Amino acid sequence: MAHTNTARETLIDLLHGVERFNTEVFPQNRDLFASLAESQSPDTLFIACADSRVNPSMITQTQPGDLFVLRNIGNIVPAYGEMLGGVSSAIEYAVSALKVSHIIVCGHSNCGAMKALLDPQASHLDKMPTVASWLRNAEAARAVLEATDAGPATVRSLSEQNVQLQIAHLRTHPAVAAGLARGTLTLQGWFYDIASGEVVVLDETSRTFIHVDEAIAKLRAQQASDATA
Amino acid sequence: MAHTNTARETLIDLLHGVERFNTEVFPQNRDLFASLAESQSPDTLFIACADSRVNPSMITQTQPGDLFVLRNIGNIVPAYGEMLGGVSSAIEYAVSALKVSHIIVCGHSNCGAMKALLDPQASHLDKMPTVASWLRNAEAARAVLEATDAGPATVRSLSEQNVQLQIAHLRTHPAVAAGLARGTLTLQGWFYDIASGEVVVLDETSRTFIHVDEAIAKLRAQQASDATA
Amino acid sequence: MAHTNTARETLIDLLHGVERFNTEVFPQNRDLFASLAESQSPDTLFIACADSRVNPSMITQTQPGDLFVLRNIGNIVPAYGEMLGGVSSAIEYAVSALKVSHIIVCGHSNCGAMKALLDPQASHLDKMPTVASWLRNAEAARAVLEATDAGPATVRSLSEQNVQLQIAHLRTHPAVAAGLARGTLTLQGWFYDIASGEVVVLDETSRTFIHVDEAIAKLRAQQASDATA
Amino acid sequence: MAHTNTARETLIDLLHGVERFNTEVFPQNRDLFASLAESQSPDTLFIACADSRVNPSMITQTQPGDLFVLRNIGNIVPAYGEMLGGVSSAIEYAVSALKVSHIIVCGHSNCGAMKALLDPQASHLDKMPTVASWLRNAEAARAVLEATDAGPATVRSLSEQNVQLQIAHLRTHPAVAAGLARGTLTLQGWFYDIASGEVVVLDETSRTFIHVDEAIAKLRAQQASDATA
Amino acid sequence: MAHTNTARETLIDLLHGVERFNTEVFPQNRDLFASLAESQSPDTLFIACADSRVNPSMITQTQPGDLFVLRNIGNIVPAYGEMLGGVSSAIEYAVSALKVSHIIVCGHSNCGAMKALLDPQASHLDKMPTVASWLRNAEAARAVLEATDAGPATVRSLSEQNVQLQIAHLRTHPAVAAGLARGTLTLQGWFYDIASGEVVVLDETSRTFIHVDEAIAKLRAQQASDATA
Amino acid sequence: MAHTNTARETLIDLLHGVERFNTEVFPQNRDLFASLAESQSPDTLFIACADSRVNPSMITQTQPGDLFVLRNIGNIVPAYGEMLGGVSSAIEYAVSALKVSHIIVCGHSNCGAMKALLDPQASHLDKMPTVASWLRNAEAARAVLEATDAGPATVRSLSEQNVQLQIAHLRTHPAVAAGLARGTLTLQGWFYDIASGEVVVLDETSRTFIHVDEAIAKLRAQQASDATA
Ligand SMILES: [Zn+2]
Ligand SMILES: [Zn+2]
Ligand SMILES: [Zn+2]
Ligand SMILES: [Zn+2]
Ligand SMILES: [Zn+2]
Ligand SMILES: [Zn+2]
Repeated sequence: MAHTNTARETLIDLLHGVERFNTEVFPQNRDLFASLAESQSPDTLFIACADSRVNPSMITQTQPGDLFVLRNIGNIVPAYGEMLGGVSSAIEYAVSALKVSHIIVCGHSNCGAMKALLDPQASHLDKMPTVASWLRNAEAARAVLEATDAGPATVRSLSEQNVQLQIAHLRTHPAVAAGLARGTLTLQGWFYDIASGEVVVLDETSRTFIHVDEAIAKLRAQQASDATA
Repeated sequence: MAHTNTARETLIDLLHGVERFNTEVFPQNRDLFASLAESQSPDTLFIACADSRVNPSMITQTQPGDLFVLRNIGNIVPAYGEMLGGVSSAIEYAVSALKVSHIIVCGHSNCGAMKALLDPQASHLDKMPTVASWLRNAEAARAVLEATDAGPATVRSLSEQNVQLQIAHLRTHPAVAAGLARGTLTLQGWFYDIASGEVVVLDETSRTFIHVDEAIAKLRAQQASDATA
Repeated sequence: MAHTNTARETLIDLLHGVERFNTEVFPQNRDLFASLAESQSPDTLFIACADSRVNPSMITQTQPGDLFVLRNIGNIVPAYGEMLGGVSSAIEYAVSALKVSHIIVCGHSNCGAMKALLDPQASHLDKMPTVASWLRNAEAARAVLEATDAGPATVRSLSEQNVQLQIAHLRTHPAVAAGLARGTLTLQGWFYDIASGEVVVLDETSRTFIHVDEAIAKLRAQQASDATA
Repeated sequence: MAHTNTARETLIDLLHGVERFNTEVFPQNRDLFASLAESQSPDTLFIACADSRVNPSMITQTQPGDLFVLRNIGNIVPAYGEMLGGVSSAIEYAVSALKVSHIIVCGHSNCGAMKALLDPQASHLDKMPTVASWLRNAEAARAVLEATDAGPATVRSLSEQNVQLQIAHLRTHPAVAAGLARGTLTLQGWFYDIASGEVVVLDETSRTFIHVDEAIAKLRAQQASDATA
Repeated sequence: MAHTNTARETLIDLLHGVERFNTEVFPQNRDLFASLAESQSPDTLFIACADSRVNPSMITQTQPGDLFVLRNIGNIVPAYGEMLGGVSSAIEYAVSALKVSHIIVCGHSNCGAMKALLDPQASHLDKMPTVASWLRNAEAARAVLEATDAGPATVRSLSEQNVQLQIAHLRTHPAVAAGLARGTLTLQGWFYDIASGEVVVLDETSRTFIHVDEAIAKLRAQQASDATA
Repeated sequence: MAHTNTARETLIDLLHGVERFNTEVFPQNRDLFASLAESQSPDTLFIACADSRVNPSMITQTQPGDLFVLRNIGNIVPAYGEMLGGVSSAIEYAVSALKVSHIIVCGHSNCGAMKALLDPQASHLDKMPTVASWLRNAEAARAVLEATDAGPATVRSLSEQNVQLQIAHLRTHPAVAAGLARGTLTLQGWFYDIASGEVVVLDETSRTFIHVDEAIAKLRAQQASDATA
């Protein structure tokens, strides 16, 4: 059947990609991979959407070993409670076992999960009960947007609101709360715009998203202030 | 404080990486990203460990838009049931909404989750109750290894067994079962060895892992046989 | 009230049945029951529907002490996960404590649970939310049938598909997976047709149901082959 | 391997039993099975332990079609709540769809589940976490026994207490509560002694177990009193 | 904004009330509060609705230290099971740690939770999914009322039925079952009528609600009978 | 038995209290209760510990009808998620149906729940598994305290930290998030000291607890600033 063979072709392509990685890319990074063979020590837990257009290592221009990466639909972090699953365990592992210094929650433009939350009918959410149930973890973001009458809610506004909510959820996890209290952990919210390639960073004081250079400047200022103190 | 400033430095580095992506990498891929701005249509759902040394797009040499990526500790897929979370919803979304043709479960060498399962004490699993609870989804893999007296269980054997188990779990999800019955979906198990950069592929008939070129040959043979039929 | 008295009569009938058992049947089996008084060691865990027309010991012509019997609507085995109840505990007990050698999942014709899954409206499933929720454990069977366009789905096709699914679910239970790996446990799917009294057996290789004599022949062939090896 | 062949032999025996049923037993009951082929209308939901020595139809000397049978370890009925599984759905189905008139909960002597509850260590309950969790549904029975200092708790006392508890749990299910209020449903607790073949019946007024003939006499008296009224 | 200032005013009023408590009421009870500063030993666990018109200490004319008070919507006690939350933990704490002698479940007239259960549409229950889910714990009370054709169900009838159900749920909790068996714990159901200020008490024998003086007389009679015995 | 009669006496005392309420207190408030008979419209949801020494209406010097009161051990608010119970439903009802303007979470001195969290062994928490599980909702507060090396953690510090955590949990509830965004809801954390009768109020800006008069002054200042704007 033609269709099946087309599908099979994409699988073969993937496997050819693996061969290319093995023969062309790996040799150039042999030392890096050798040093990583027996352990990892990433500084950052990066939580992103499963969306195929979001590539954490590309966006951050990082190498294998740099980012511990958690991905699900909608870059969601269920609040800590009695029902603990894949996200909660990854957070616990990243903070307690790997002792990461940062957790970044990265939303993105044109997110299918956010679109489904904003317009369940157009997204046929009734046909996807498990997705609908998962998106309850972003429900408070939708409720906030609906409550503020600042024009029609957009996917982008919802994504940004959702990043803020998931950061709030992160704080309910004991390991995160302890890391923040101890000053050994920082949380940061990002929003990545696919069309422009731009990332903006959540400024928790103003609760707005600022440009990367501004975010860097703020961190530098904090460093200077700490150095003086 | 020195420690905090070091940590802050890695965060600033990440943000500099973002700037580099934006000024150097993005312009070279402007057309690709423009074409992806309003939608995605990935062929493959790729399920991998959150481990920082595993980079799905690098291993497969794919571009943004190619892989819908789900990552958690231990590349685990809870079986379908009453307790449905991030993994189940991503599977439902990938199969029902994105209509992917393939699902790949990719284990890897030196996996911290598998090490914790194999030796809970050495891994201080008692201090990470949420991780311990999550790893129950891989418990049947450990039980199999313990049952077969083929020498001491190793992290690699467990990882391979775990890939087989998670493939079995995938089949319990209605959307996956339907796709398999319809012939529009294929499942594949991979194991990635960090030290050698090599990927081996689970052959479901022999229940062993085979080399990529062999896997390609098998797929080509199926294509030929289908074309004749 | 007449109605109540009719109902009471059936209860009295049951109690008279008990007296008959005690005075007529028990004495003939006194030795058997004496030998069973202090312990049981059944070889088989038999999982069947609660349906009143299915009588495991009658179908298999076995005696008290032979079958450990688990019955619920739809002869369902939830996959192993975080939500573990009556079925999971019975499997764990049968395999770990009783060390049974076989687990048989037995579906049957004209099954009310399968009819409800196939036609929720005609079965008034909306009035039985708990049943509806329980049948999600058979949802993948329904999805498979709907996906394959081999004519209209029938209760029998669904029951057979369901037996296959529940066998797959069994494999996700650690104790079962270990037993299979060790070679000390076998799984078998059956379908019992009430009208003809016939049982057919799932052949896992061909994924079809075969006659009992054929199933016996296959087992005999395996015995011979093992004896030679 | 000898062991495997022995095990296989018991499976072959079961299949031979099926053939015997088909050729010898079924023909004698052809009319009964023909009348049952398209529907069932049992009067009673019978809830018993999965124990291989307990055979509901034998004990009650009933025919196929008479008893809707639910079996799990410990003849347990979880109270109605948010976590609803196989037992709750079978109750809902039996009462709402089949409109049974009676529910019998039947405990038995030498019950492994009760032994495990009474002496977790001797029963290696720590190796069976799912069983341990399931037995929490009988915990209140154990607590009552421990609270009353009437000599050392025995498996029999616990089984009887457990039957009373599960009857109380039954009353928390809406369908059961409604049936009781309407007068269309009766509940009865039984205890079956394997060694003597005797069944005793829970008298809810005195909260003691009475002989079958006494239970029949009480029902007859109620009938007479109703007829007069 | 006027509205916000009005709201703020009620908050300021509350804080003024606190000041009044501190300067006027507290000094009069200084000795009582001093004696309570380091420990509590209440005799009674009082379970009431969150309704603003129900004031347990006012109704019973008790002092701080007398009642351990649990309040939620509908004065509900989920039956003991696998899903244990705030109510179950408070019961366990009250009985096991505080060793209370009594548990009182107090329903009341015009209860919003009961109205929502009786008429979900008028109460917009579809907009409050969490409330709807919580009220499943009172579903058996509604089912009983619907089953008995004693005229249209009223909020009062449902509240009384609900008190009976929650008392039944209490009995499924191991700590409660043990306390009852030991004779160290009594359960009592109350119904409080806001309009008349009257409380009636559930008489478990007759399953009706009786006046307070009658309830006292019954307790006195039991005391006398115990003293004689 | 003496013991039982003593216990019965306290129950009779409670009932005498009810009679006193009915004959002495109710008549003085007849008009208030008449006006409340058919509806309630409290401005505030007050969340307090079940502790017998905490009396919300006394502390705030409020009347029946003023406070919608939720009480459980530890004045805990589980974060919004998939497991929703008594607290979540009460919040939903208070905000969506009653449209309260304020939610106050009130901790207190010498809290048994906080003591159990701080010293599980001394509190015999191992004997109270349900309480232990419920206290996981306060675990992040304990983790914070343990992380900050500001001397030994005290029950008071933990209670204050816990109030802050539960306020954070409140924000994860959609109805609360929407109310906050709309400006129609305010949250406030309180700590009540039993020995001194003093209440201090959480200042969210400084994350410290301030005196009531200071809290009033801040609210007045906000009113003035709003009036000017
Ligand atoms: Zn997305
Ligand atoms: Zn890994
Ligand atoms: Zn059936
Ligand atoms: Zn048993
Ligand atoms: Zn109420
Ligand atoms: Zn407290």
